[in-house]
Amino acid sequence: MKAVIYAPLETTVTAWVGRLRALMPDWSINALDDEIDPGSVQYAVVWRPRVGDMARFPNLKAIVSIGAGIDHVLMDTELPKHVPIIRTVGADLTQFMREYVALHVLRHHRNRPHQAAAQARSEWDAVEVAPATQRRVGVMGLGNLGAAAAQTLSGLGFQTFGWARSPREIDGVTSFAGRETFDAFLEGTEILVNLLPLTDATKGILNAETFNKLPKGACIINAARGPHLVEADLLAALESGQISQATLDVFNTEPLPSDHWFWSHPAITVTPHIASRIDAGTGSRIIAANLETFEKTGTVADVADAKRGY
Amino acid sequence: MKAVIYAPLETTVTAWVGRLRALMPDWSINALDDEIDPGSVQYAVVWRPRVGDMARFPNLKAIVSIGAGIDHVLMDTELPKHVPIIRTVGADLTQFMREYVALHVLRHHRNRPHQAAAQARSEWDAVEVAPATQRRVGVMGLGNLGAAAAQTLSGLGFQTFGWARSPREIDGVTSFAGRETFDAFLEGTEILVNLLPLTDATKGILNAETFNKLPKGACIINAARGPHLVEADLLAALESGQISQATLDVFNTEPLPSDHWFWSHPAITVTPHIASRIDAGTGSRIIAANLETFEKTGTVADVADAKRGY
Ligand SMILES: NC(=O)c1ccc[n+]([C@@H]2O[C@H](COP(=O)([O-])OP(=O)(O)OC[C@H]3O[C@@H](n4cnc5c(N)ncnc54)[C@H](OP(=O)(O)O)[C@@H]3O)[C@@H](O)[C@H]2O)c1
Ligand SMILES: NC(=O)c1ccc[n+]([C@@H]2O[C@H](COP(=O)([O-])OP(=O)(O)OC[C@H]3O[C@@H](n4cnc5c(N)ncnc54)[C@H](OP(=O)(O)O)[C@@H]3O)[C@@H](O)[C@H]2O)c1
Repeated sequence: MKAVIYAPLETTVTAWVGRLRALMPDWSINALDDEIDPGSVQYAVVWRPRVGDMARFPNLKAIVSIGAGIDHVLMDTELPKHVPIIRTVGADLTQFMREYVALHVLRHHRNRPHQAAAQARSEWDAVEVAPATQRRVGVMGLGNLGAAAAQTLSGLGFQTFGWARSPREIDGVTSFAGRETFDAFLEGTEILVNLLPLTDATKGILNAETFNKLPKGACIINAARGPHLVEADLLAALESGQISQATLDVFNTEPLPSDHWFWSHPAITVTPHIASRIDAGTGSRIIAANLETFEKTGTVADVADAKRGY
Repeated sequence: MKAVIYAPLETTVTAWVGRLRALMPDWSINALDDEIDPGSVQYAVVWRPRVGDMARFPNLKAIVSIGAGIDHVLMDTELPKHVPIIRTVGADLTQFMREYVALHVLRHHRNRPHQAAAQARSEWDAVEVAPATQRRVGVMGLGNLGAAAAQTLSGLGFQTFGWARSPREIDGVTSFAGRETFDAFLEGTEILVNLLPLTDATKGILNAETFNKLPKGACIINAARGPHLVEADLLAALESGQISQATLDVFNTEPLPSDHWFWSHPAITVTPHIASRIDAGTGSRIIAANLETFEKTGTVADVADAKRGY
């Protein structure tokens, strides 16, 4: 079996080639840009492939996304649509996201930005907040990551609400399904967490209309994808006070350019796309196992649905 | 039944008198400094009573601490030792402390101080950390607050260890009991949380010897009492790198004086004694119920043991 690997950084490609070769001695693993017979390539393991990269291989059986999202694969306008896309997910990815969401929801809930500013002025400013049991938080997207994040918030005592496309039953979480329930989901949500996949239906969903349905002074956390957020709408909402604080892990351009206004806005916490990750060692084992299973059975649990976009 | 109320701030006293009068119409409630016949006083409800305050009342049946700790009562060197002390604890107190400990352990675990500093320089600095499942955290004190905090950390995925005087069984927490197990408890603990009561045995327990038993670069969180910490030892440990970060909620003098070095030390997070509290409404209901029960039955669940100091 022949597989090729592509990622924007050559050093990353070299490292992945090495890891997968070590784990899959029976396979022939190459960098996508190596000289190889395109007809012989059966699998492509990629992060942000270039337009036309996948179309070069007529006998591709599956494309593996080095990550949970497939939006970066679907951005290839010449993508052969019939080829299944395998997502890479695992226990660590979920664990990291639970931690990130718990940390940043608690930061907003307990008013850390305010406390940090008071410390900078050497000021004892014991603002009282309500307990989490009186705080309503909402998680958009209840998949692998969103469901785990919502359950974690519920375990911390928050009044936890979730929103997905189809009905989901999660212990301790009140769930809404479908566009028509979006307003009811948003109503009263003081801290809104985005863990949706990036699709045509979800692009720009963090916009003025959404913000205006939250109670005044709500906080938002975007740990999904940069294009979910309409940046100008956030700026206006921060200026009007409709949104009081935002924590952003993902951006339209990454790394976030050093002159972007996000960096220095006092109400914005920037984190450098660190909410969650699979470390390369674990990730390569998951990818190797998925490739072996797919080659044997023609499918795996983590095949995405390119038509619905995730 | 006659009860008197004392707290350092007169406005606080007035507020508590009002609340308890409303809840206990059959009782006679006064400020401790009102003109009253000392022999008629049966209960004192206090926060940091002055030396001799309690000795003035020969017929005292119980002293109520407006808080979970009784150290502030025991500091009265003329305290009548035979009078039971009732602590004030409740669901909100535990909830707030769980949140505080989860927030600050996660902050240290996910290296928030480093990320915040990088943002201040507009710098994309995606430091990788291990998942909580590979991080050992330790909670000193497994009472009302410590047990709940430890359970919460375990629920977040941390390898959670606890230490108390007597053996405690807490789901998901490996517990140690007694002085002789202290070193084994500390070994490998990367984030150490203090939730001990302040007693002769625990005063100054956060000292150089303790720090040196932790792995280099450990973090500490003191949410119990200021005198648990030997300040000079913390400064030295931060300078040597033995301790990398500290979060402190409690201090020898509160409010923390504005010229104290804690405020501006880059490795110290100061919070103004906000880890946990019972709001006055809930607190007065708990105290009223405790007083009524004690008057009827001669005891309540939350009687502290003055001899052991907590
Ligand atoms: N910041 C980071 O470090 C990081 C790391 C990894 C992943 N991510 C992002 O997180 C995203 C989610 O990952 P995941 O593994 O949890 O995805 P997933 O398992 O595919 O779950 C997606 C969830 O979103 C819901 N959803 C999709 N379209 C929707 C719509 N139009 N309206 C309402 N709900 C919709 C789905 O509903 P159904 O349940 O009905 O299908 C599902 O609950 C990824 O796509 C990626 O962009 C970020
Ligand atoms: N920062 C804040 O906002 C805030 C708010 C409320 C309270 N506090 C502080 O938190 C403290 C703890 O409250 P709590 O309600 O959890 O107290 P608690 O229920 O009395 O529990 C105390 C715990 O400490 C253990 N302990 C006592 N002395 C010890 C020793 N010498 N060695 C080892 N373990 C020892 C006890 O062991 P055993 O289980 O064996 O008895 C018990 O597990 C209070 O005393 C107060 O100072 C702070």
